Amino acid sequence: MQLIDGKFIAKTIQNEIRTEVNTFVAQGSRPPHLVAILVGNDGASETYVSHKMKACKYVGFRSTNLTFPDTISEEALLAEVEACNQNSEIDGLIVQLPLPPHVDYMKVILAIRPDKDVDGFHPANVGKMVMGLPCLLPATPFGVMELLKRYKVETKGKNCVVIGRSLIVGTPMSILMSRRAVDGTAILCHRHTPEAERKLLTRNADIIIVAVGIPGFIKAEDVKEGAVVIDVGTTRVEDDTTLSGFRLKGDVDFEEVAPKCSMITPVPGGVGPMTVTMLLVNTLNAYKTRNVSLAVKTEALREN
Amino acid sequence: MQLIDGKFIAKTIQNEIRTEVNTFVAQGSRPPHLVAILVGNDGASETYVSHKMKACKYVGFRSTNLTFPDTISEEALLAEVEACNQNSEIDGLIVQLPLPPHVDYMKVILAIRPDKDVDGFHPANVGKMVMGLPCLLPATPFGVMELLKRYKVETKGKNCVVIGRSLIVGTPMSILMSRRAVDGTAILCHRHTPEAERKLLTRNADIIIVAVGIPGFIKAEDVKEGAVVIDVGTTRVEDDTTLSGFRLKGDVDFEEVAPKCSMITPVPGGVGPMTVTMLLVNTLNAYKTRNVSLAVKTEALREN
Repeated sequence: MQLIDGKFIAKTIQNEIRTEVNTFVAQGSRPPHLVAILVGNDGASETYVSHKMKACKYVGFRSTNLTFPDTISEEALLAEVEACNQNSEIDGLIVQLPLPPHVDYMKVILAIRPDKDVDGFHPANVGKMVMGLPCLLPATPFGVMELLKRYKVETKGKNCVVIGRSLIVGTPMSILMSRRAVDGTAILCHRHTPEAERKLLTRNADIIIVAVGIPGFIKAEDVKEGAVVIDVGTTRVEDDTTLSGFRLKGDVDFEEVAPKCSMITPVPGGVGPMTVTMLLVNTLNAYKTRNVSLAVKTEALREN
Repeated sequence: MQLIDGKFIAKTIQNEIRTEVNTFVAQGSRPPHLVAILVGNDGASETYVSHKMKACKYVGFRSTNLTFPDTISEEALLAEVEACNQNSEIDGLIVQLPLPPHVDYMKVILAIRPDKDVDGFHPANVGKMVMGLPCLLPATPFGVMELLKRYKVETKGKNCVVIGRSLIVGTPMSILMSRRAVDGTAILCHRHTPEAERKLLTRNADIIIVAVGIPGFIKAEDVKEGAVVIDVGTTRVEDDTTLSGFRLKGDVDFEEVAPKCSMITPVPGGVGPMTVTMLLVNTLNAYKTRNVSLAVKTEALREN
């Protein structure tokens, strides 16, 4: 059994980004710039955003955290998004979810310019992903794809069972597994898949990707000998032995499942660190696309 | 075994549309207007477009067939698309594929205004489909969903195997089967799925939707007793006994598969007639959306 070390891969990619950013800056360009909009005082959201800002700092990005009270109106929030859309010094924009109930979060997502939507949540990006066109991919599935690639996991013609159909993980994951050059047989299970059917499917799966948020959901009996298991779940469970009073648990019963696997991601240290890192990759890509078009514009101006 | 009569359902829906259009016109509105762009002299394409125009006529739509020689430049074709985008008298616009090789067909699809894209091929519509947002659905999968609905086929928690991952049938089909309120377990097989695995999956499927273009691809041994089988394939095979010299054959070996099914679509007369009909439904929906926004605008003007 080989452990898929997401922490190591994430750091490797962050170092690759850092080197590239250093080169850009040394050549006189401004660094890529990510803006995170945070509404209200949700503890988990604050932690996520601060992790993202810290990662930006590490790779040499500029980052800005715009915070607003949870009393902000939908209209005012949309105006803030629009200001970021218009600002040519901003390459990537994320709005940390959840938003307060009086704000229609889908309206906010739809308001973000697709070429700055580094979370990959805008339908324009989702549609391009389905069609295999260049786009900004949702960070978590993008991270899983990168782990599979860097660990040389064969996907072509393999049975790939995805459990959970959320818009930010399971659904895009199943779409990506079936695309050209990945070529897996994509199977998407969810809350309405009868348990017996789901177990039949996972027991025949070469690759299992689980994102349901139920600690220990996947047991040894659900997994074929030699399978690759990707655990996207990160649920906080109480733990008196830690300083924080909790620890993260995945959707896979790691102790009993790991011995059967050819490869498996641990929690923490598997998919988790990849999500923030792929957000950085998206921001870098958005920056490069913007700079290419800026360069083209400059060229055009010269010709006039 | 019950036959799913797509021809009958298609006619029923066309009559529903006709009644609605009559009402609009009686109230003084212009009828919905579909424009089809046809490039070159491909016989099959000409037949498809003429079927679509004929269907428009039946339901009372205005229809226009813009034809261009296959020497038209990409630039000129994009200009024609843009003219249709701008024309407020046009509700739906389709560009019949294939296009000549010197034209980048994806560029043309991307140029169509998403709210006039009644083929549902634009990434903005594809993305919204994935996210369960209101959009124009690709006609063939939309037609299959309508058949399942009108024949009250239970989809919730059912094993739904889709074979073929094309962007216009298989891929959107598998996405739709897993969405909320449909709630099927979606399994997408394609050319890279090993035959033995595919057969295991179809033999356990409650619903099989096949779109591979290989006559008689699905045999009795591939199908579970009581399954629902949807045959999207329509391949022309030579037949001396017909006037045209050919007949349409589906991807399912109907004679041997039908007796095992609870329901099955024939070819012809199954999914085929639904595709043109759902194009009409999309055009009607695009028309209604346009008219609603026009109405809102008029209201706003009154207030000023």
